[in-house]
Amino acid sequence: MNVNAICEASILKTAIKALKTLVSEARFHFNDGNDGLHARAVDYSNVAMVIVDIPSDSFEVIKADGEVVGVDINRIDDITKSIKDRELLEIICREGKIEFKNKNITYTLSAIDPSAIRKEPKIPQLELPAKIVLDAGEFKKAIQMVEKISDQVVFRSDDSGFYIEAEGDVDKITFHMGDAELTEFNRAEARSMFGVEYLKEFTKIASSGDLLTIRLGTNYPVRLHFELEEGGVNVEYILAPHIETE
Amino acid sequence: MNVNAICEASILKTAIKALKTLVSEARFHFNDGNDGLHARAVDYSNVAMVIVDIPSDSFEVIKADGEVVGVDINRIDDITKSIKDRELLEIICREGKIEFKNKNITYTLSAIDPSAIRKEPKIPQLELPAKIVLDAGEFKKAIQMVEKISDQVVFRSDDSGFYIEAEGDVDKITFHMGDAELTEFNRAEARSMFGVEYLKEFTKIASSGDLLTIRLGTNYPVRLHFELEEGGVNVEYILAPHIETE
Amino acid sequence: MNVNAICEASILKTAIKALKTLVSEARFHFNDGNDGLHARAVDYSNVAMVIVDIPSDSFEVIKADGEVVGVDINRIDDITKSIKDRELLEIICREGKIEFKNKNITYTLSAIDPSAIRKEPKIPQLELPAKIVLDAGEFKKAIQMVEKISDQVVFRSDDSGFYIEAEGDVDKITFHMGDAELTEFNRAEARSMFGVEYLKEFTKIASSGDLLTIRLGTNYPVRLHFELEEGGVNVEYILAPHIETE
Repeated sequence: MNVNAICEASILKTAIKALKTLVSEARFHFNDGNDGLHARAVDYSNVAMVIVDIPSDSFEVIKADGEVVGVDINRIDDITKSIKDRELLEIICREGKIEFKNKNITYTLSAIDPSAIRKEPKIPQLELPAKIVLDAGEFKKAIQMVEKISDQVVFRSDDSGFYIEAEGDVDKITFHMGDAELTEFNRAEARSMFGVEYLKEFTKIASSGDLLTIRLGTNYPVRLHFELEEGGVNVEYILAPHIETE
Repeated sequence: MNVNAICEASILKTAIKALKTLVSEARFHFNDGNDGLHARAVDYSNVAMVIVDIPSDSFEVIKADGEVVGVDINRIDDITKSIKDRELLEIICREGKIEFKNKNITYTLSAIDPSAIRKEPKIPQLELPAKIVLDAGEFKKAIQMVEKISDQVVFRSDDSGFYIEAEGDVDKITFHMGDAELTEFNRAEARSMFGVEYLKEFTKIASSGDLLTIRLGTNYPVRLHFELEEGGVNVEYILAPHIETE
Repeated sequence: MNVNAICEASILKTAIKALKTLVSEARFHFNDGNDGLHARAVDYSNVAMVIVDIPSDSFEVIKADGEVVGVDINRIDDITKSIKDRELLEIICREGKIEFKNKNITYTLSAIDPSAIRKEPKIPQLELPAKIVLDAGEFKKAIQMVEKISDQVVFRSDDSGFYIEAEGDVDKITFHMGDAELTEFNRAEARSMFGVEYLKEFTKIASSGDLLTIRLGTNYPVRLHFELEEGGVNVEYILAPHIETE
């Protein structure tokens, strides 16, 4: 365990925010395969998975050789919150400790034994016919409005576009996104229902300008791939569907 | 019931905010007499009345013929909150439903049977000698300060100006507004006391720059007429006085 | 008791905020010796002292002759909060009343009998070898971060700089300030531990750009002198140390 990495604080902050929605501890894989930093986890109810990938290019420096470091997500969140997004952050892992250095501040944290952290999930292979690419900010706005009237939401797509729909006791809301609103869309038919609470958590990391790719099937999990920090951080959520009862 | 109206979101939002201070349901009268949209209501304790008038001119389009539609104020408040003030909002009433359309979003709400909503009040005829016209923002600021020391406030006027006064257990606050602060003032004598809680709610709709016309008598209700959204929405509150005990 | 003073609202507001951290009542000394307004107080646990000095120059007008006026700090805080920083505020003390005038508003408050207010502390003579001058905003930021992991903090200085250090259950944070970060530093050795809660309260009055002078000893009280409002208000806090146990 001997890692030295330097990146803009916003890169790590975004990764932490993404993981935080589902878990409080995770394994960081440094330079293990393709990415500078990789982490993935499922939530305790096994309904949602998060996969975080930070390309090597997003680091100014990254010296590591496949190390796996167990981290307390909430602690790192606390630490990094007060660091400005565009400031550099150095991450040093050695002797069971993780140090975060920002300018004249050093924050030292005990690493967690990776074997004490819940086993990582396999990333499932899923046949998802519809591909919808849109601005993550628009999606976030839709979820925020939907949340006010229902805890379930239907995503559906057909030749005429992509729809986000929810029904409350006495009211109903429909977002329609056609060619004007979508960056890319293969016009495939699909329809699944999801829990709004999860989606609301997921969209916290996204802002207007971030690209969101949705892969949707029928009564099947959805994949939500967020391209954040101008491609500096990739976050994918996989969410199990609710069963629609008529 | 077949209404189609388009206005800037801020117009409807302001009307809803005004009604919300007193009631949770109201009847919307579309193109009934002089105004594009009219609504009025008294609160459950019969202490205050609100009258909202949106001139036809405030709508881009208004196709209606005296329809009366029962609405859930809080629902509409929720819906319209997330719409930007300067964006257009389309209101469609048909088949027992009210639709609100903003860009690619359609929000559908069940209308409420107007006969199930509390009967509307008659607007009382009141002899109110003093007329005081001032910036609503200044009035709002006075009420906010008064609120900190007392739940009652005296409005009084005489030849020397208009006074807002309140007394706490150990302290006292006086706002004096003379020719420099008043837009119009007829120098009539009047004096009445009111509950601060209501006034605080009323002033929520107003900002600096809005015009407020106060009609004041002695131990008599006060009328507070707010000209909002540059004349696009008129809101009048009538508030019963408290009895002053010496 | 016959005082008339005029200053920018921010001057009085800052003084009130400083006193409020420790006490709810205080004695204001007007033109008593060197300063236009002087006040000092210890908190009820006798752990911390605050000393506020507003130079005569910070007042546009100050007519007073050593008057001592008992004031309710929280009331004045409420009153002055709604006054804009750069607006003028007139303070009039006469006949057992204190009036605060801002434009067309008069706020009248009963003065408190000074003899009913807790006795003022003597300002202690302390031998404090280390002198550290820095930006108060940086200090505030350090205290905010420290607060997240511990309720105790060590201040220490030696030839290499000034250190703010705290240890949590599993983590540790170190701020190092050397020549680059310090405005003035005499390189004296010192080390004492303090309660974070007090420091957090103290730093509420300070912003980036304000100058903070720290006088530090070993297992000894610390003096924190804040130069606020561009020298218009001087606030000094004296804080007793915690005993370090190994």
